Amino acid sequence: MNQQVYYVPKVNKEIGNQVSDYINTLTKPVGSLGRLEEIAIELAKMKNEAFPSVTPPGVLVFAADHGITEEGVSSYPQAVTAQMVLNFLSGGAAINVFSRQIGASLNIIDIGVAQDIEHSSLINQKVRYGTGNFYREDAMTREEAENAISVGYEQGQDMINNGAKCLILGEMGIGNTSASSAILAVLSNSDIASLVGTGTGISQETLLHKVAVIHESLQKRNPNPEDPIDIISKVGGLEIAGMTGAMLAAASNRVPVLLDGFICTIAGLLAKEISPNSADYMIVTHQSVEPGHQLAISLLGKKPILDLGLRLGEGTGAAIAYPLIQSATLMLKEMATFDSAGVSTKR
Amino acid sequence: MNQQVYYVPKVNKEIGNQVSDYINTLTKPVGSLGRLEEIAIELAKMKNEAFPSVTPPGVLVFAADHGITEEGVSSYPQAVTAQMVLNFLSGGAAINVFSRQIGASLNIIDIGVAQDIEHSSLINQKVRYGTGNFYREDAMTREEAENAISVGYEQGQDMINNGAKCLILGEMGIGNTSASSAILAVLSNSDIASLVGTGTGISQETLLHKVAVIHESLQKRNPNPEDPIDIISKVGGLEIAGMTGAMLAAASNRVPVLLDGFICTIAGLLAKEISPNSADYMIVTHQSVEPGHQLAISLLGKKPILDLGLRLGEGTGAAIAYPLIQSATLMLKEMATFDSAGVSTKR
Repeated sequence: MNQQVYYVPKVNKEIGNQVSDYINTLTKPVGSLGRLEEIAIELAKMKNEAFPSVTPPGVLVFAADHGITEEGVSSYPQAVTAQMVLNFLSGGAAINVFSRQIGASLNIIDIGVAQDIEHSSLINQKVRYGTGNFYREDAMTREEAENAISVGYEQGQDMINNGAKCLILGEMGIGNTSASSAILAVLSNSDIASLVGTGTGISQETLLHKVAVIHESLQKRNPNPEDPIDIISKVGGLEIAGMTGAMLAAASNRVPVLLDGFICTIAGLLAKEISPNSADYMIVTHQSVEPGHQLAISLLGKKPILDLGLRLGEGTGAAIAYPLIQSATLMLKEMATFDSAGVSTKR
Repeated sequence: MNQQVYYVPKVNKEIGNQVSDYINTLTKPVGSLGRLEEIAIELAKMKNEAFPSVTPPGVLVFAADHGITEEGVSSYPQAVTAQMVLNFLSGGAAINVFSRQIGASLNIIDIGVAQDIEHSSLINQKVRYGTGNFYREDAMTREEAENAISVGYEQGQDMINNGAKCLILGEMGIGNTSASSAILAVLSNSDIASLVGTGTGISQETLLHKVAVIHESLQKRNPNPEDPIDIISKVGGLEIAGMTGAMLAAASNRVPVLLDGFICTIAGLLAKEISPNSADYMIVTHQSVEPGHQLAISLLGKKPILDLGLRLGEGTGAAIAYPLIQSATLMLKEMATFDSAGVSTKR
């Protein structure tokens, strides 16, 4: 374990207290904007600013394939990963729609799709052509895992250099709920059966098969729970490692990261393992229906904002939650105080 | 009971089924956008359109005073109603901030503030100078109740004529949680103690006093639960009746209404009593912390979208939820289908 060190500063609790006091002077009953007030305080602590801004947001979608699909754990054929990448590039996927809605730049990164994709807007950072089938072999080498994290870090840094004030991370990869469930089982030392769900919609029979395949794979691969790079290389995914890297870039720059669903939250847990402070820059935007998500969120020490039965991925849940995060910042920046508006306070 | 009839068309269930089938052809796993898909279907049924739009939204805030504040049921002095109206007019309140964020027109209507307010942007439709103290007398006459509903209807109709594709309704009125709790106790035949909360933040002692005052008031006023106009005139509020009228205007025009918190939901229940079909045009945007809200929502047959511990009013919860409603419409309008994008479906 001679892994790269990512320096992440501590959040500023002092400014959080100042912002909390300031919010109590705004023209509304104390505490009446509930969670929005908590989010505003969190953002101030992350950004070390009394009036933090999250505009514009930047969306990064990492795409890669998974060798484990050979074992019949997914309801869609592997070719869908590349087909969906083309759909992203022509603007027709859900994440395109929601990125346009919130005025976000959207970058699509091929970090490991199993086939070549030619498109002028695609960012080609392929680390390898899909992972190995972790039922039979390691998903990737240790070096490939570190490369995938570096690619993600650079992509996150580029998006920030280009002006993004918060990052939204998404993924596309047929089979990636299997990889994510395996990672969570290692990190939480839990029985895989309690973590595995129907992903994009498999049958009950396929679900039992999926559980058995992952269970046996974990016994064979035996990842070291203390070593996140080992976990990624044994049972991980390239797009998961990419998101982990982008989260580390965001946290290093004091830029908030909006986490989407299950797979993205697993990438968040890996980032926290690599650099514990990085978790303080993450906001979990929603509770998905994937069974392992609740455990992953609690391991990250977070509370989701939305609970809308989402399970799409691509960063979509984070994108639709973004306006709420923006509302919290606008409350701080634009509301009048009792004094400035001449409104009487409580008697 | 010779009350005015408001004609509200039934929603179109057939188009809802068509839209549901269409959503299943979009490039995402079936059902993976959860609640957003349900909202899209509801909007299609309301608007009788396969691709409904909710842009731009229009916000109406009705302001009025409550004689019951004489009994010491609120934590803020009555003067705050007028002071907050001026804050709305100068753009510094939370609803101003969130209306700007979502690109909504915002109209402020004085439907019964206890003092005169001079401002060129204020819509003056004062029905009377605050309600009577319903602990000692009826809140208003039957005619005043009907006038307040008419004012709201006209304001809603004007906003729709000016292009609003959905309405967000808000209120300002110190003391209006007392009036709303009283109305809910009548409509639900419930014990008032289970419905009353701390409003904008009263002490436990004031809370017990508030319960006792409303309990005794209900015995003295004895509103007829079958007659919504009688309920409004005995224990209601002018701004509550105004919101009820605006909801009836929206429903008559097949325009969706986004309901905010407790007081707004009570106005929704009154609209449903007056015209049962009107409830089909309402979307409850959030679960507030006011104890009666959950009961009110269930009487309306709804499920809230957000649960963020909000209790501000002014329409703020509905305004911050608006982007999610918009996301649902954009999903329908802008996403590619599996066919059009050349993406394989499930095997």
